Amino acid sequence: MRENKKTIIVFSNDMDKVMASLVIATGAAAMGDEVTMFFTFWGLNVLRDPKKRFSKKSFLEKMFGWMMPKGVEKLPLSKMNFCGIGPKLMKYMMKKKNVQSLPEMLKQAQELGVKLVACSMSMEVMGIKKEELIDGVEIGGVATYLEEASSAGVNLFI
Amino acid sequence: MRENKKTIIVFSNDMDKVMASLVIATGAAAMGDEVTMFFTFWGLNVLRDPKKRFSKKSFLEKMFGWMMPKGVEKLPLSKMNFCGIGPKLMKYMMKKKNVQSLPEMLKQAQELGVKLVACSMSMEVMGIKKEELIDGVEIGGVATYLEEASSAGVNLFI
Amino acid sequence: MRENKKTIIVFSNDMDKVMASLVIATGAAAMGDEVTMFFTFWGLNVLRDPKKRFSKKSFLEKMFGWMMPKGVEKLPLSKMNFCGIGPKLMKYMMKKKNVQSLPEMLKQAQELGVKLVACSMSMEVMGIKKEELIDGVEIGGVATYLEEASSAGVNLFI
Repeated sequence: MRENKKTIIVFSNDMDKVMASLVIATGAAAMGDEVTMFFTFWGLNVLRDPKKRFSKKSFLEKMFGWMMPKGVEKLPLSKMNFCGIGPKLMKYMMKKKNVQSLPEMLKQAQELGVKLVACSMSMEVMGIKKEELIDGVEIGGVATYLEEASSAGVNLFI
Repeated sequence: MRENKKTIIVFSNDMDKVMASLVIATGAAAMGDEVTMFFTFWGLNVLRDPKKRFSKKSFLEKMFGWMMPKGVEKLPLSKMNFCGIGPKLMKYMMKKKNVQSLPEMLKQAQELGVKLVACSMSMEVMGIKKEELIDGVEIGGVATYLEEASSAGVNLFI
Repeated sequence: MRENKKTIIVFSNDMDKVMASLVIATGAAAMGDEVTMFFTFWGLNVLRDPKKRFSKKSFLEKMFGWMMPKGVEKLPLSKMNFCGIGPKLMKYMMKKKNVQSLPEMLKQAQELGVKLVACSMSMEVMGIKKEELIDGVEIGGVATYLEEASSAGVNLFI
């Protein structure tokens, strides 16, 4: 068990929860910790690259893809979303208060060496392909997670 | 503190979150870990046996019981539920991709020795009785949880 | 790493989730543990004192303040809220079953020495000022959290 190792499961694609996970992850990495973020289920949408496409999908896979937010810039709020007005207000206030935007935080996480892992089982079930994800993402299953978490001092599910 | 001990609080009765908790629990148990799952609040509904009934309830207790999902087969999705169409699609895609169903995962968790604990205080408040729960479930309070969590290496709240 | 140290991030302002966090925190503190609760994002509303006001706010900050629940007595349920009927029913059943109310639990947490920390970055973004919070709350950032969590045996995100 190493006190300076941390894992975060990002299950949600809510802008506010993803922000919390990235603030903790980049904060810890900046202090020299080894951080792994596992993106599973709705959280996978954070890793989708809006500029990438993958055409060989079944009808249901395509439908799921259309209905979910595509990338870290498009996430809804968990509360007070108001059809997208809430996230816009939140972004405006974050900018005004000089808080990094989510795409900036995600980029910084990668630069600080935070390991980003996409959950293979969720990708399978939701029909999300490696080709659609941003660069630098690893694919891993529950065994990968358990191995990392067992040796980490802080493990969060967000 | 034992690295191979894990606890999960299952607070939610969302199909997707319950699935995440069961994937982690069965995965860890299959690798030889000692796993305890605490079902509290909405999560209690996962443990309700749809074939069991308990008639001596107050009006409010009955009302709560009617309005909540009865058992692991009936859970809603946390997002894109669409009055029950979402969970049906999800089940269809899980089956197509050869992912175990939730009832199968729950059964497997029990077979692998995962300890299932129902939170006594939540049962009290929501009027859920031991007689309504699936077999093999223990009842425990916050002290039980704290004792287990304090000696476990990974503790999640889902 | 100290097994008797625990941290809880309270991200949500849902009555049910806040209750879970307070039950765990007071339970652990009563058993002699050192407990720190970090209130971030929506969770900040738990710490707002309904009797305190702060007038020098921008229009957006005021709007956010109006739309969010003011204090631990006003929290919604994460499910079955029904425009406030759900929380009323829940409070009624808690009282009937002799479970402490949320304001009582929060007070008890403070009496038992649970450290309550308000997240400085969330306060900034949402325009919540120290002057509006209940007495006895500390202000801290992600570094404060990481320091506490790294030396704690149980860390939850609720």
